[in-house]
Amino acid sequence: MRGGRLVLDEFDTPAPATGQVLAEVLACGICGSDLHTLEHTDDFAEMSSTAAAVADFPTETFDPGADVVMGHEFCARILDVGDNTANCKPGDTVVSIPIVMDAGGVHPVGYSARYPGAYSQQVVLSDMLCMKVPNGLDPAEAALTEPMAVGLHAVEMSRITPRRGALVIGCGPVGLAVTAALRLAGVETIVGSDFSSARRALAATMGATEVVDPSEEPPMEAWRRLGGNRELVIFEAVGVPGMLDEVTRSAPRGTQVVVAGVCMQTDSFRPADAIARELNYQFVLGYDPGQFGRTLHRIADGQIDVAPMVTGRVGLDGVADAFEDLRDPDRHAKILVVP
Amino acid sequence: MRGGRLVLDEFDTPAPATGQVLAEVLACGICGSDLHTLEHTDDFAEMSSTAAAVADFPTETFDPGADVVMGHEFCARILDVGDNTANCKPGDTVVSIPIVMDAGGVHPVGYSARYPGAYSQQVVLSDMLCMKVPNGLDPAEAALTEPMAVGLHAVEMSRITPRRGALVIGCGPVGLAVTAALRLAGVETIVGSDFSSARRALAATMGATEVVDPSEEPPMEAWRRLGGNRELVIFEAVGVPGMLDEVTRSAPRGTQVVVAGVCMQTDSFRPADAIARELNYQFVLGYDPGQFGRTLHRIADGQIDVAPMVTGRVGLDGVADAFEDLRDPDRHAKILVVP
Repeated sequence: MRGGRLVLDEFDTPAPATGQVLAEVLACGICGSDLHTLEHTDDFAEMSSTAAAVADFPTETFDPGADVVMGHEFCARILDVGDNTANCKPGDTVVSIPIVMDAGGVHPVGYSARYPGAYSQQVVLSDMLCMKVPNGLDPAEAALTEPMAVGLHAVEMSRITPRRGALVIGCGPVGLAVTAALRLAGVETIVGSDFSSARRALAATMGATEVVDPSEEPPMEAWRRLGGNRELVIFEAVGVPGMLDEVTRSAPRGTQVVVAGVCMQTDSFRPADAIARELNYQFVLGYDPGQFGRTLHRIADGQIDVAPMVTGRVGLDGVADAFEDLRDPDRHAKILVVP
Repeated sequence: MRGGRLVLDEFDTPAPATGQVLAEVLACGICGSDLHTLEHTDDFAEMSSTAAAVADFPTETFDPGADVVMGHEFCARILDVGDNTANCKPGDTVVSIPIVMDAGGVHPVGYSARYPGAYSQQVVLSDMLCMKVPNGLDPAEAALTEPMAVGLHAVEMSRITPRRGALVIGCGPVGLAVTAALRLAGVETIVGSDFSSARRALAATMGATEVVDPSEEPPMEAWRRLGGNRELVIFEAVGVPGMLDEVTRSAPRGTQVVVAGVCMQTDSFRPADAIARELNYQFVLGYDPGQFGRTLHRIADGQIDVAPMVTGRVGLDGVADAFEDLRDPDRHAKILVVP
């Protein structure tokens, strides 16, 4: 990303410092956050500053003026290791939470001006954060660990139980990851809502027990028809202004709303609508290393089949076009970059 | 309340129907919601409709065009009982959650066009909802059961524990009730914030371990100085537009925000600010009968001393002036109407 555009360019192979490893990128998923960042660079920079300000460690913030190699949903093979490494060895196939540490602090892989992200041939990673890909899992599937961990985190931050019901609004990658995690949590009623028939079909594949088209029936009416008197947890996975108000005006009393869609613009609603319903809103971001590791093993063990989510593959020269193609929800869910 | 104004008028003594009792009002607190209702009648009507729509029973909604006798924080003495009553007998001193039931459903005492509220000499109540005032408790103190129960409910809906800390923003009656409930929950660090020195002093009396003046130090900075690394629960007890945004922009990561102040206007904030901090918002309203009963006994047992909160007493002819006087937070917290 250079000056708000995606360009293909060459740079020197980065060298792993102490505690770091050099790895060859095998596959990297394109994330909706990257599309958003390219379009609303300043909003993302502000959110990055906020997240850094509340982080436990000094964290590099996103610099909209710098060259940034994006890509944070990757699987890679270790090429070389730096000093003081004990975890990885050359040849290992790994995934990692997308941060790399050095003496200066924490750098977000894919949003850093100091370290390249994984829309590139090689990345530098922190040795101790790498997790070995088990069971000979296809690197293309291992690359989905990161987006699927987002779903597990959202579900574990919620009050969901098997007998409560879930309504997942938006069946893009975040909503699909939530759906898969809900299914593994044993939730009996999982209603997925999306305007796109392709995404509704994917939601059913990933574990939704019912899917609804909001252009035919408001999601909350569908929930009342399908969920009966169960307590409801709504997973908002759209992240555009107005969603919060729509949910707030229509949710049943006592509902928990897990806000997993990232809305970076200002949004408005009427607190009185939330008060009258005693709603609870849980805003969520990312995952912890434990959730990341469990997600990797769930994929490797066959508990989550991510293959249906991969709707395209491109080389490095196809990333810019893939960003455009991803705007059509009927065509694509997840496109993988295979350098 | 007639045509948006408070007027003193006479009407016939209401008759208790089956399951109802007639009671003489001994004392009734003036609630901030009443001031708000008089000023923003349509907002209140809309919130009333929303609450009725999500209620479990058919509920009378507030009619801004009707004559309404307000007053829902009362203590009363039973004068007469209707058919099918088994709980109350004449002479009993009682409090009640402010609803009365009949064949048509639930009517909110104090916001009903069918039953008078307690800014009057007599009220009709539901026999089974009345709770006898124990220990010879002064009716003037028993009347504070209702507002204090609001605080207990907010605290019980929160994630507070003794080792987590609380920041109470706004030390009006709602904030003071929250503070008293926090103290009884054993919370070790309770920071109260209010612009008024009189209210800060009251907060300290009711249980705040520290009080801060937001004109001298932003509440969140005070919290960081006083609360250390404790996990934080913020009780927002102001309820005006902009509070949510202020809290969202400044809260530590992982904070829970209990929204106890009732903001009826549209409000706006940036979801990204809440996402970066993984905030949780719990909106709360009212209490349940158990919380109401426990609050009565806490007051009667001397666990909560509500006497300092009562800053004035008026007769029925003083209600309109008292509404005006309550706008000055340095003069008043709770004014009691003693018919």
